Amino acid sequence: MEQCSLGIGFSQDMSKEAILFHKKLQGKIFVGTKITKLSNKNLQLIYTPGVATVCKEIFNHPNTRYQLTSKANNVAIITDGTRILGLGNIGPDAALPVMEGKSVLYRKYGKISAFPICLNITDRKHIVETIKAISPVFGAINLEDIESPKVLDISHDLEESLDIPVFHDDRHGTSVVVLAALLNSLVLVNKKIAEVKVVISGAGSAGYGIGKLLYFAGCKNIIVLDSNGAIYKGRKKSMNKYKNEIAEFTNKDERGYLDDVIIGADVFIGVSGIKNLLKIKMIKKMNQNPIVFALTNPSPEINPTIAKNAGVRIVATGSFSYENKVNNALVFPYLMRAILDLKIRKITLDILYAVAVAVANTIPRNKLGEKNIIPEINDKSLQKRIMLALKKSKLKNIKHI
Amino acid sequence: MEQCSLGIGFSQDMSKEAILFHKKLQGKIFVGTKITKLSNKNLQLIYTPGVATVCKEIFNHPNTRYQLTSKANNVAIITDGTRILGLGNIGPDAALPVMEGKSVLYRKYGKISAFPICLNITDRKHIVETIKAISPVFGAINLEDIESPKVLDISHDLEESLDIPVFHDDRHGTSVVVLAALLNSLVLVNKKIAEVKVVISGAGSAGYGIGKLLYFAGCKNIIVLDSNGAIYKGRKKSMNKYKNEIAEFTNKDERGYLDDVIIGADVFIGVSGIKNLLKIKMIKKMNQNPIVFALTNPSPEINPTIAKNAGVRIVATGSFSYENKVNNALVFPYLMRAILDLKIRKITLDILYAVAVAVANTIPRNKLGEKNIIPEINDKSLQKRIMLALKKSKLKNIKHI
Repeated sequence: MEQCSLGIGFSQDMSKEAILFHKKLQGKIFVGTKITKLSNKNLQLIYTPGVATVCKEIFNHPNTRYQLTSKANNVAIITDGTRILGLGNIGPDAALPVMEGKSVLYRKYGKISAFPICLNITDRKHIVETIKAISPVFGAINLEDIESPKVLDISHDLEESLDIPVFHDDRHGTSVVVLAALLNSLVLVNKKIAEVKVVISGAGSAGYGIGKLLYFAGCKNIIVLDSNGAIYKGRKKSMNKYKNEIAEFTNKDERGYLDDVIIGADVFIGVSGIKNLLKIKMIKKMNQNPIVFALTNPSPEINPTIAKNAGVRIVATGSFSYENKVNNALVFPYLMRAILDLKIRKITLDILYAVAVAVANTIPRNKLGEKNIIPEINDKSLQKRIMLALKKSKLKNIKHI
Repeated sequence: MEQCSLGIGFSQDMSKEAILFHKKLQGKIFVGTKITKLSNKNLQLIYTPGVATVCKEIFNHPNTRYQLTSKANNVAIITDGTRILGLGNIGPDAALPVMEGKSVLYRKYGKISAFPICLNITDRKHIVETIKAISPVFGAINLEDIESPKVLDISHDLEESLDIPVFHDDRHGTSVVVLAALLNSLVLVNKKIAEVKVVISGAGSAGYGIGKLLYFAGCKNIIVLDSNGAIYKGRKKSMNKYKNEIAEFTNKDERGYLDDVIIGADVFIGVSGIKNLLKIKMIKKMNQNPIVFALTNPSPEINPTIAKNAGVRIVATGSFSYENKVNNALVFPYLMRAILDLKIRKITLDILYAVAVAVANTIPRNKLGEKNIIPEINDKSLQKRIMLALKKSKLKNIKHI
């Protein structure tokens, strides 16, 4: 648990305060009821004998479960605790505070009932079986902080076998918020996405998702690294089917580690899980007007102030302690609301791209700035814009439930 | 689904009203948050980066999960939909309205966060594995409406392998409310529990639980029947380990069906799942001042009015449409509150007996009456009495977490 040391942007005071706050709350979430008064009459309607009619109705007309129960608005936030934030494999018990935090955001911003399911199993097949078994109660699944590449396999397995959407926030949510922030940043530095060199450090769920969406958005020069350095077609060491996929559309001829491939990069995107990975000397090798998204939580790949002083033009982190909060929290409650309401069955690159553009455009062009590349999480217009983007006719090929 | 016809106490109007009520609500429950205002400061505490400290604290001191998360107050209401009310095997989707109803009662009367988990699997081992896998988030498990004897096996397996209590409402809750109602009824007819003959129709979870608790409470003459008639030691047909256990402490020498063993019975307890099972001619064969608890829902073993007219002294049902509501809803929210607060690890007959006595005594002796043998579900003193009963020193042998 060496990674669990809490770094920059994280004072002792905040640590203490966070513990005290949680102790006082005794859990950030609760299961409540919409029924305000339980008269004897109401009891007969919602419990026995009246509820039997409702059961019978669903038995005879299964689709009515979306109207007669909470299913349509229930999301399972599922983790096995193997890759919690940048803290690593801390297990299902210690993972719960993060999942409850996600539930709070789902409720506050998306008006969604999201219940945390922390699994004390880590085997792919076992996890898939468990999620399938508990799926009847939920309108969607949110996979969260499960180690990669296992989680990508799980996500694929579930998409094949479930009749509800599977949202993988570390991949889908992160890729959307990164692309949105990048689109706005590129406007500010007057560069085109088709012409920039982007270095992505980290080839887990986030790195994989970002790489795919950036390529889909037109980015032609992407280098993705893992702990063995730049990923390329034909690399022998530590590959898997997802890295092979990455190798297909990235990195024509670069080899080596971050220190090597950062040369001439316009954009650095850190989803590495490694604190202070990006050094000043690396920044000095980047192209003019460098953009740095140091997104590992709780401790980013570089302290934003240090990055700025080293000449970075636009810097962002995943933390709520700094400006330019490139955190998927900005996306997942609103996107999930749209997924549930529009009964979207499968999350595609088309959908993610449309949402990223919608999120980017939430900031009026005349308000764009180096410290304002991405909207605040509580921006009231986010929901409307995302919903509108997914209703558009050009997204006709969305699969619905 | 022949059983799904809705019987007495169940008008067409109520059926329609129940559907409309559920359609309007779109789910009776929701997942909410205790955090009223999500300032940027609060976001840093409950989400990233602050939450990482809380995760670390639980990782280093696992017991703090009971203080720092919602676990201590979370209950999973788990069903596989195989035995919903008296409706039979209607599956996990159609089961959800009942589970949501239970969640509402848990919230309203026990201040408990109970989340429904409807499983689309029915294999014993698979169910046990699934519950074990999702257990980290919960402070207790409530098994609900799973077919017997499988559910008794599941309950046993889970008690062996989980570190949280397993409450089996159809067995535990029902036995408590029945014993409570019986104790009060016997006062009214001036009979002693050690001297009465009790016929229990139904040898599923409820029949098994009631039989065991009544025997524990001193009842010496109990006959339990299943669809093959009276259960007795040495019976060959359709026995299982639980029926063998029942045969050990019941029925010395009676054979035959309900029509036979009802002769001379003081008490009939119906947990059979069979509407209109108890006939007037059977009542006529009972002992003086007969007591009838026709508890199958939604349609009892006899219409209470018919029973009364046939000479039954005290009649009760499990429905909220009649007087004497012998429904486990009267017990489970309050008992679970006590289980969670007192960190009770295993539910024993000692505990169930103490709670039954406490529930019975909730009605002041001078208020006892043929139409008032059991308190109303919203009786304010129930919680205090149950909590007190379980705190008593004589229950020192309770296992705690």
